[in-house]
This record gives sequence, structure tokens and C-alpha cells, in this order.
Amino acid sequence: MPKRKICVVVTARPSYSRIKTALTAIKEHPKLELQLVIAGSALLDRYGNAIDFIEKDGFEISAKVFMVLEGENPTTMAKTTGLGVMELTNVFYNLKPDAVLSIADRFETIATSIAAAYQNIPLVHIQGGEVTGSIDEKVRHANTKLADLHLVASEDARKRVIKLGENPEKVINTGCPSIDLAKEILESPQLDFDPIEKYGGVGSALNWKNAYIVVMQHPVTTEYQQAKAHITETLKAVKKLDMPAFWFWPNVDAGSDGTSNGIRAFRELEKPKNIHFFKNMQPKDFLRLLKNSKALIGNSSVGLRECAYLGVPVVNIGNRQFRRLRTKNVMDVNYDLNEILKATEKAIGTHHFKTSNIYGNGDSGKKIAEILATSELTYAKTITY
Amino acid sequence: MPKRKICVVVTARPSYSRIKTALTAIKEHPKLELQLVIAGSALLDRYGNAIDFIEKDGFEISAKVFMVLEGENPTTMAKTTGLGVMELTNVFYNLKPDAVLSIADRFETIATSIAAAYQNIPLVHIQGGEVTGSIDEKVRHANTKLADLHLVASEDARKRVIKLGENPEKVINTGCPSIDLAKEILESPQLDFDPIEKYGGVGSALNWKNAYIVVMQHPVTTEYQQAKAHITETLKAVKKLDMPAFWFWPNVDAGSDGTSNGIRAFRELEKPKNIHFFKNMQPKDFLRLLKNSKALIGNSSVGLRECAYLGVPVVNIGNRQFRRLRTKNVMDVNYDLNEILKATEKAIGTHHFKTSNIYGNGDSGKKIAEILATSELTYAKTITY
Amino acid sequence: MPKRKICVVVTARPSYSRIKTALTAIKEHPKLELQLVIAGSALLDRYGNAIDFIEKDGFEISAKVFMVLEGENPTTMAKTTGLGVMELTNVFYNLKPDAVLSIADRFETIATSIAAAYQNIPLVHIQGGEVTGSIDEKVRHANTKLADLHLVASEDARKRVIKLGENPEKVINTGCPSIDLAKEILESPQLDFDPIEKYGGVGSALNWKNAYIVVMQHPVTTEYQQAKAHITETLKAVKKLDMPAFWFWPNVDAGSDGTSNGIRAFRELEKPKNIHFFKNMQPKDFLRLLKNSKALIGNSSVGLRECAYLGVPVVNIGNRQFRRLRTKNVMDVNYDLNEILKATEKAIGTHHFKTSNIYGNGDSGKKIAEILATSELTYAKTITY
Amino acid sequence: MPKRKICVVVTARPSYSRIKTALTAIKEHPKLELQLVIAGSALLDRYGNAIDFIEKDGFEISAKVFMVLEGENPTTMAKTTGLGVMELTNVFYNLKPDAVLSIADRFETIATSIAAAYQNIPLVHIQGGEVTGSIDEKVRHANTKLADLHLVASEDARKRVIKLGENPEKVINTGCPSIDLAKEILESPQLDFDPIEKYGGVGSALNWKNAYIVVMQHPVTTEYQQAKAHITETLKAVKKLDMPAFWFWPNVDAGSDGTSNGIRAFRELEKPKNIHFFKNMQPKDFLRLLKNSKALIGNSSVGLRECAYLGVPVVNIGNRQFRRLRTKNVMDVNYDLNEILKATEKAIGTHHFKTSNIYGNGDSGKKIAEILATSELTYAKTITY
Repeated sequence: MPKRKICVVVTARPSYSRIKTALTAIKEHPKLELQLVIAGSALLDRYGNAIDFIEKDGFEISAKVFMVLEGENPTTMAKTTGLGVMELTNVFYNLKPDAVLSIADRFETIATSIAAAYQNIPLVHIQGGEVTGSIDEKVRHANTKLADLHLVASEDARKRVIKLGENPEKVINTGCPSIDLAKEILESPQLDFDPIEKYGGVGSALNWKNAYIVVMQHPVTTEYQQAKAHITETLKAVKKLDMPAFWFWPNVDAGSDGTSNGIRAFRELEKPKNIHFFKNMQPKDFLRLLKNSKALIGNSSVGLRECAYLGVPVVNIGNRQFRRLRTKNVMDVNYDLNEILKATEKAIGTHHFKTSNIYGNGDSGKKIAEILATSELTYAKTITY
Repeated sequence: MPKRKICVVVTARPSYSRIKTALTAIKEHPKLELQLVIAGSALLDRYGNAIDFIEKDGFEISAKVFMVLEGENPTTMAKTTGLGVMELTNVFYNLKPDAVLSIADRFETIATSIAAAYQNIPLVHIQGGEVTGSIDEKVRHANTKLADLHLVASEDARKRVIKLGENPEKVINTGCPSIDLAKEILESPQLDFDPIEKYGGVGSALNWKNAYIVVMQHPVTTEYQQAKAHITETLKAVKKLDMPAFWFWPNVDAGSDGTSNGIRAFRELEKPKNIHFFKNMQPKDFLRLLKNSKALIGNSSVGLRECAYLGVPVVNIGNRQFRRLRTKNVMDVNYDLNEILKATEKAIGTHHFKTSNIYGNGDSGKKIAEILATSELTYAKTITY
Repeated sequence: MPKRKICVVVTARPSYSRIKTALTAIKEHPKLELQLVIAGSALLDRYGNAIDFIEKDGFEISAKVFMVLEGENPTTMAKTTGLGVMELTNVFYNLKPDAVLSIADRFETIATSIAAAYQNIPLVHIQGGEVTGSIDEKVRHANTKLADLHLVASEDARKRVIKLGENPEKVINTGCPSIDLAKEILESPQLDFDPIEKYGGVGSALNWKNAYIVVMQHPVTTEYQQAKAHITETLKAVKKLDMPAFWFWPNVDAGSDGTSNGIRAFRELEKPKNIHFFKNMQPKDFLRLLKNSKALIGNSSVGLRECAYLGVPVVNIGNRQFRRLRTKNVMDVNYDLNEILKATEKAIGTHHFKTSNIYGNGDSGKKIAEILATSELTYAKTITY
Repeated sequence: MPKRKICVVVTARPSYSRIKTALTAIKEHPKLELQLVIAGSALLDRYGNAIDFIEKDGFEISAKVFMVLEGENPTTMAKTTGLGVMELTNVFYNLKPDAVLSIADRFETIATSIAAAYQNIPLVHIQGGEVTGSIDEKVRHANTKLADLHLVASEDARKRVIKLGENPEKVINTGCPSIDLAKEILESPQLDFDPIEKYGGVGSALNWKNAYIVVMQHPVTTEYQQAKAHITETLKAVKKLDMPAFWFWPNVDAGSDGTSNGIRAFRELEKPKNIHFFKNMQPKDFLRLLKNSKALIGNSSVGLRECAYLGVPVVNIGNRQFRRLRTKNVMDVNYDLNEILKATEKAIGTHHFKTSNIYGNGDSGKKIAEILATSELTYAKTITY
């Protein structure tokens, strides 16, 4: 019997961490063949060349898709997505997968969903059913309505997808594969590399060995014109805090130009001595860096998801993660220097939390592969009500 | 105070009939400015040049968008959509509308929705919340999840959109503007033109004055490889029926090539004497033609919607309208010569039905314009549960 | 030593006839590997599904590229070309050829040339250096300026490419591969099939065994609005001539909609009894059909090229072949019923001509393959003066 | 009589300087209407937001076209061009210009040329007929073969375009509009602003008032993989020279990522104290900066063109300007630290040169406008030999 061909499209750095253990499990499953497509910002040096890590991890790439239009504004974001539809349609036409996996809710993931659904290819959506702000909220639920099989990351999400009119048999809580990595880390959590030595980056040399924080703040597309103002508050807070900080550049969403410019301007003018900047890091290195930090500051979903499992205190800024499932490791604040500073000081003073399983308990990748190997794959559906 | 700019994107012949009275009402509303974009197959001679009728009706076109990739298969359908996203993004970027209207559920309407939503332009979706088969089912609900304001055509649809997690205040049953036209027709329903004289078309000269039927059957994208087989059953049934038939060419969906080829092959081989073919007709002429027919055969939503109001008997073939709201004028049959023939004979023998208001009572266009003029326009939302 | 990978892009029906023997020679050459890309109208049913013949001839297809935007006007022609650049760029990026072959002068061939040249892939241009009217004239010479190696079809063309500033060592007269096919035909020229039985087509059954003509007339892009008027003159002339005629549908250039509409309208209104229409024919069948005809009418380059070798009399209409190299088998006339009729009557009365070698003597395919296998492949050049 | 609509497409920072006086002359000409389209990197912050300067100069923008695909490699360069064809086709379709102006030889200018030529719009090419290396050499001559009217910048170029088979009446030496600006500068050449104060930029504060150099080095697309190595030689040379240097970031060609990375890496590692970096400068400010410098180092055509008129000594590195017309202010060197250093030291020790008129004498803009207003505009042509 021929293996089922499962095509996974990774369009960005964080999506790779989010899916990595599932990729491995698909690759190793006797009944599955992995077709890995790397697209969008995952190919770009400016966003940390995720593809280099992916290749180092031993994955073979079936297709590379350059589709990011420069501009980092809502207009180029939309056009990137349109181009993505065209490009990924070609890719699926050539690869003829038995199913396509679309990951989560980044703006360009709808391109994956359309290219598969319109070509009558069964579409599997990972991490649907969650709630947030930003354009991600619209994209995520639209992906759900285009998808045929839903592998969600929490019970909360499972219930929501069913409420959205999906057949309950097609909605399965596998947990989030990112938690699989977190679990592996917890087995030997010590930081076994020097971040600056290993990843270079730019900015000050830091005396980070005693204590440091991690910062990761993306633009919110629905507030993209405030991106520079928003990041500046965080920069000021972190400078004032005067603790070593490892800071990750933003992703490619509308507003990332504002965020990046805000960072660059702050660096030139304020020359902060306690911040070092990275574009990217291998998923496990990143998790170890988090685990050994005092806190994560910003608005990445990593704060709600991986950090729930790792127990790292998080200062979550603004609306990007509005209403997303979270546990007590997260403090929410506004885009405000003082709020950020106060919450961060409190977070730093806190011990790490106990592991929470709200996003899974570390076996998601294998569950996903097994479901892909055994469940019926269909491409037509009708709402349940 | 400046008028609100309302941008409406019409991408196909039937979408124009579906929205025409709303366009007029927007154009005439003192607080609104209409920006009309004509795109896709509405620009193409092969699909009946809907744009000619639109211009004759006195509408000014703000932009024309050529976006249909040839091939009539799932691959070109997806690529057409991707191209549509890119093109419509440009159009909205230049027109700077205060709101964009996306109509119903044709595959390319998601391009309108993405181009607006990703650019933070309030998106109004018309005719969401219904149920059908084909890719339309996925597209319609995805449009709902991308849209900020929902103007639906029935109570049934209103409840479904609310169940989908939309804010009930943002979901309004305006009825379907196509019913407005049907209502106007019923005031003087007689056929006041000779279809062949006025619209040309190809095929046999017909002695249609005593009795005739109308046929309109589109491919079902999720069954596109059967398109030719499916249409052939209908062709055989109509030939066997031996009553004059006015037949409309299919739309641009995946499979339309199969449908068209089926028709062409049948014409060459069987030379049916009782069928005349049209590409398009002005909306009101089309409704008068329907009203004076014995029955409508095929799978167009016109059968469930306008014909409910007009009371015309309908033989609805196959899965395209699966579960869509209908009243007793509709008989459902499979793709099968005998079933089609038997049902059609029965329909022809039936009197026309009483007017049904399930899709509105004839004032939708004005309701839509008034809501667009007065309701708050927003572009960020979160699911209600 | 690895074989040189030679990527050939076929974008239309006639380009295949034009390159077929070279494809075979490349495929069979011990030092070459053929990468065959089928794109544009060569994939479309409306234009005769050239791909079916190509696959039947035993060629393996490396990639298929849907890129034709509907509309058949200058705007869609330009957009098709832009899309072609994007698509073919992807294809070459994935196939990593050692050289790309761009054929002749159809509008979309510049897409092949740009996609190769901009990616630093050595570009070989076939059939440069000729002269004509229409947009082809601009496209052909632009292709020459983008190409690194020029395999031309005549001495006249060789001299012209050198005058254009190309290095004489990089300009080689191989003759035209279409002549190779013509030579094979002349070895057993009798018509060994019934055209209507084998190819179907539409239109009248013809009593063609005694005598017939062939018609092939394409729109001229720079006169595209006159396409319908132009074709109508020819239709009238052929009808009046009242000799059986095999007529081939036009290609996908701007204006082909006008040409097709002109033909369809004429068929409906005038119901010509002596014309049968085909979309396509296998290259050798087509040449046999030509060889056994009384004359070819229209504006195809086949009249100047293959017919020079076959000796078939040709009535060449209008500006499309303006100044292209020709021999005495060609009579030039304007778009005028009477001129066409008079010239055709004269052509029909003429014996076939002696074979002319102006476009080669039947060994082009092998010459081309040998040059591709042995000559130095470069991708940077500077004008010679 | 309606004014002739002249559509000019500016796709990059330097193209604006190159055409500015012509834009002004077109805008002010009583018989002309300017339609200014800003596209590509001229819209992007990363490349210096040329559009801001253009708007400040009082030009109204008819359309903005986002078309740059990220990646800065040959593949994205080609795809950007394809996208440009599609986008500019739309723009011309909507603006309906009487003529389109395509400027010089940047890779994306062929998109302008195709979009106009294929839509039967008369195409005017500025600065054809010159000679260089890089992909520009192919693009420039292809533009010539697509264009109908050639307004060249030197006698040398005029003769070459005629040799390329263009009708001599359609080839006019207007000189280069960039020289018009240079002439204005020479009337009051003193540096009337503080570059760092006015333009910010990044890098060291410089004590530049006594003496400084300017550096501008772009990647060579045909050598794009060496971009980082090439720029590093120049960086080392400039650091070693230890004279204040104003350095301009590279353009968007394939390899610019390598060039930019080379600069960034050098800054982090070597922390050069004598270099300050700018993204862009208003055209006249830039020329004043040049005029008051000791020398220009790099491979910009500014060195051969504007600097010929200004008399500034130039060290021209590598193949990018291979064989382009130059006068004695230019010294050619290889990508080699020592060669660059030696030549720069010699250049710094030289007095400025006398004004040379090889690229015009300062009245090009007006000449161009007058020709556009009065010459016959056509869109079909045939090679002269």
C-alpha cells in the first residue's frame, strides 16, 4: 500500500517550533510520507533564516516558496497572501498530497488553506479554536471553516471548533506539539550554550549569567500604525529595568517595519547597554533560554503556551493574545512603560510556576502522525446546524 | 460631512442580479457613495459580458479587474482567487473605501474578503449563513468569519451566523435583494420581449410561445470531474422531453469546461431541435422568462430563492444546493435522466405556487443601504464564545 | 560526467511543431537531459490541448504552468506574460537547468527569457533574427538581447542577429526544426488518415477527397480591435470560393476573442457548407494535410516556413508576416474579400512549387542538440559595438 | 485640444534623480499632463523612501505599486519583475496614457516596457544605448527593442541605438536630465546643510568638515554570490584610509542582501570610526555632497555621469560599469583592498576636473518634454535592416 503523502507548509520561524515534533513523527511513521514546504519569511535572512535550522535538523525540503512582498504594511500583507495562494496552488498541484496541513493563524496560513481546499485536497488544520486579537482571530476561524479535520491544542479549543459547526468526530484534541519540545527540555533544563557565542546577533555584550529576561514583541496588525509607539514603551521599560535582556526581532506582519524601526531608532539614540538582539534560535535552544530566564516580556503566544508548561513568568502586553487560554504564569498589561516595568519587576521576583498541561502533555507530535495515518481523509463537508 | 464610500465587488453574472437593487439604493442614498468594482467572469464575453448590462443600467465602474485564469479546473480556480486577492488589494488601496461588500459564496468572493479584512477595512458580507454543497459551503462560512457585519437573506441564515460566534447586533436579516427584482416583475409579469430576437444566442429556432422550460446547471466543484457526465443526463432528459427549452451556459467554476464540452458535444452529435442557448440576460428579463416558464431545471440557487417568490416549479439536480433553505416549489432529484425527466414532467403539470417570503419581501436593497449609512463600521472582532 | 540539463518551454500549439525534432534529439543525446515544461495555451482545451499530443509522442513533462488570463485582449496578454515570469521563475528555480531554451517570438516567450536571464541561467533563443509585424517583432528582438546563444533558422536571420550586436560565435544557423518534419513528410506525402474521422472538429461534413484548402488566420495584436472584421473578409472569401476548407481556430493572442467571435457569428448566420473547423492536429498530420491541399490561406508563419519546403502555394493576408523571409510560393494580399478570393483562385490553379531550403534542409533538430551538448554555456555578455 | 498624458514610472531612488528635471518640465508643459507612478523600492523605507522626497518636491502621485518580493536574490528579482508586469499593466489600463516612459536599465524597468508595449501604448525609453556589465546590459537593450522612441543621453548612445536597428528619426540625443541638476548645483556648489543633522543615518559622528569621501557600491547581479566578499574589500579599504566617509546603502538588486550583510557584519566586528551610513538623500543635496567630496568610491553610474559634469574624481570598482562611456575623472580598479586604497589615495590628491559635457549640458529635461509634446507617437515598428 502506498504511504499517505502529508504536505506541511511552514511559513514562519515560530510555526516551525510549533510543529517540529509532528514533522518528526510524520517522517518516521511507516504509513506516512512527509512533504515539507518552506515558504514566506521562513526563507528570509531578515527573519532569521528558519530554513537553515530545518535543514540542519535533517528534514528534506520538497519546495521553497518566495512570496513575501516588502512593505510590512496591511497592503503588502494582503498581497503576500494572494501570491501565496497562487504559489502554493502550484506546489500542491505538483506534489499531489493526500492531505495538507495548515498551521494555526498567521495571516498567510489562509493561503495554504485555500490552495488545498479549492483543489479538493483534504485540509487538516492545527491549533484552531483558540481566541486572540489581531487579524489572527479572523484568519484562524476562517481556516477552521475551510478545513476538514481539526487537530486542536486544548479542550477549550476543541469545544469552540465544535460550536463553530464542525463535525465532532473531525475535531480532536492532540495538544500542541510545541509542548513536546518543552517536555524534552525539562528533562535537562540547564542552559548548555552561550547564546551570543552561538548565535551572534547585534547589540551589547551582556553579563547574563546571573539573571536575564527574554523579550519578544510582534506588531498587532489591526493597530499597525502604532507599532513604533508600542515597541518604544517596551524598550524604555527594559532599558530602565537594567537587567540583561535577550531580544528577538519581530515577525513579518504588518507593522513589523514600525517595530523594527522603533528598535533601530532606540538603539542609535539610547544605546541601551543591557540588550542583545537575535533574529532566531533553534527551537530547543530557545526553550532552554526561556526556561533559564527570569521572565518573558512581550506578546508572543509562546508566553501562554510553552511558558505554561515551562512555568516561566510572563508579562503579556496589549491585545495580541486577547482572551487566549492561559494559566497563572501570565500577567496582562497595557502598552505602557510603567505598567510593563512594574509587572516585570514582579515577574522577576516570582519563582517559576508548576508545569501546566492546558496545552498538552508532551505527546502531541505522535498523536498527530497517528491520526493522519489512520483517520478518513475527506474534502467535502457541511455545517452541523 | 463626507459620504461613506461603499465599495461593492461584483465578480459574476448572477451576483449582479443578486445585488442590483442594493446598488441602486446605495447610489441614491444621500449619505453614501457607491464604488462599483467589476471583476472576474463579469468582464468576459464567454460568460455573457455582465458588464455591458451593468453599464447600460447606468452604473459607473470604479475599477475593472481581469483575474480569471483559463483552465476551468480546481487549480486555475485557486490561482484565480490568489490573483484576485492581489488585484483587489490594489483596488481597495487606491479607492480607500469606508466599507467593502462581499457577496455570497462564489469561490472568488474570499478574495474580496481577504483584501478588505487584511487592510483593516470594515467588511460587510451579504447572504452569509446559508447551507449548500460544493466549495461554496466552505467559502461562505469562511467569508462570515472574515466579515464584520452580516446582512443575511433569511431568518434561518441569521440564526446560523449567530451560532457561528458572531455578535448578534452585527447580524441583520435584510432579505435578499434578488427578491426586490422578483417583486417588481410580479407587478407586470408578462413576457414583453422575444428572447431569441433580443439576445441572439445559438441553437434551434424555437416555437416557444405556448410553453417552454428554462435550464441552468453549473458544475459542482467538488465533483468537477463528473461535470460532463452530469450535464449529459440533463441534456438527454431535456431532449427527450421535447418541449422548447432556453438553456443558460454555466459559470466559471471548476468543471465548467466539462459542462460546456458536454453541451457542445451533445449539440454536434444529437442536434437537439428543442434547445436554444444563451450566455446571459438582463436580470429583469431573466426573471420574466422564468415567471412565464413551465419550470426551471438545474441546480442554480435561483430555483430556491427567486423562484420561491415567483412560485415557479423547480427541478433541482444533485448536491449543489444541498440543505439550502427552500419551500415547496422545489423537487430534488439525482443526476439521472429518468429522475430528471419524471420530475420535470410533474413540474410542468403543476400550477405555479403562491409567493413565499422566506428570502425577503422585496425591500432588501433599501434596507441594506440604510444600514450601511447608519451602522457603526468596525474591523476588529472576537468570537462570542 | 553529469548530463547537461536543457529546459525547453513550450507555450503554444505551433511552438511544439516548431521544436519537436529538437526535443527528440535532445532526449536521445547521450550528454543531454531534457526538462520539458508545458505552459500557457498548450495546456488548454480551448486551444487544442497540445499537451495530449506531446504526451502521446512519449515526452515526459517536468512541469505544467497554468498562466493564461482570460480576456484575449492586450491587457490580459500583458498580465499573462507577467504571471508567466513569476511561474517560470519558480519552475527554473526548482529544475536548476544548465540552459533554458526560449522559442521564437510569441508574446509570452519573453517570460521564459526573463525568468532564465534574471536567474543567471544561460538562455538559448531559437528562431531569432527574423522580421515580421505584430507585437512578435518587438518580442523577438528583445528575446535576442536577453539571450546568450542564438540558434537561428536562416542565413538572413544569422546576419541580422549579428548586426544586433551579438557575438558572431554565439550565432549559429541550424535551420528550423519544423523543416525536419516537413522533410520526413515528403518521403511519404500521401494523406493517410481522414481528418474529420480522426480529429472530429465541428462544422460541415466535407467531400474533400478531390481538392481542399487549409485556412489558419491569427489576430494581429497591434490591430486587435479589427480582428473580427479581418477574419470576416476571409470567411466570406472562403465561402464564396465554395471549395472544401479545413479551418484551424486562432491562437491565444490579443484579438483571438474577436477572431473566434467572428467565426462563430459567421457560422450561425451564414451556415457555410464548405468549412470544417479543427482546434489542433498532430504536427505530422498537419503537414500531410497541408502537402495534399491546394493552398494555405491566412497569416501563419507556416505559410512562409514549412510551406516553402513543402512547395504549397500560400495566400498570406495582412501585416502579420510583414517582411519575413519568404520564397515564391507566397502571394501577399490585404484584408479584402476580393483580393483574397482572386489570389486563392490563382493559388489553387498553380502546381506545387519545388522544395526551397531557405529555412533549412531537415537536420536542424540534431544540430541543435549537438550544439547544446558541446558549446560553452555562459550568462553574461556585452554588446559587440 | 486635450493634453497628452505622459506616464512616467519611477521604480527606485536613483531613477528619480535621473529623471527629476524631466518630470518638472513635463508637469509645466502646456501640452502635457504628467501621470507619475511610484513603484518598487522607491516606496520602501529600507531603500530610503524616495517617495517622501518626491512628494515634498510637489509631484502628485497617480499610482503606487508595491511589487518588491523579499529575498534580494536572482529568483525574487525575477518574480518582482513578473509581478511588476501584472501591476503596471493594471495601472496603464486605468490611466490610459498617450505614452509611457521607461527609465534606463534597472532590472524591473522591463516590466514597464512590457506593460506598455503589449497594450499598444507608445513606449519612450530614456538612456538607452549605453554599455555596462550586470543584468542591466541585457535589460537596457531589450528595453530598446520594445520601445518606439529613444531619448538617449550621449552621442555614443545615439549611434548604438541606431545600430540596433532603430529608425534614426526615433533616436534623439537629449542628454541626461541628471546633468540638469548637476548644472544647477554648480551655480552655488557649497554644502549648505549638515548631512548627519539633516538625514540622521547610522554610524559614527564624523568630523567631516575638512575632507570626506562618498561611497556607493551596489551588488552586481551576475556576481551576486560574491556580493559580501566584494563589499568587504571596499569596507576594509575605507576603514584603512581613515578619512571621514559618507556611505549609501545598496539598492534592491540581487545580492543587496549580501552587500547589506557585509556592511552590518563589518560594523559589528570592526566598529569603523570614520564611516556614517545613509539610506537616501534629496537629489540636489546628494550632488552637493558629491561636489564637496574628495572623491566618490564604488560602482554607481553617478560616478561616470553626474561626476563627469561635476568634475569629481571617481574610483570605479569592478564590472558593473564595464565599457560605459566615461571621461578622465574615472579610475577603474578591481575588487581588491590594495587597488581600491591606492586609487583612492591618488583620487584624494587630485584636484577636481573640468566639466565634461559627454552626458549633456544641462537642458535635457526641457528637451525631453518638448519632444514628448510634439513628436508623433506610434506603437508599431519594424527593424531597419
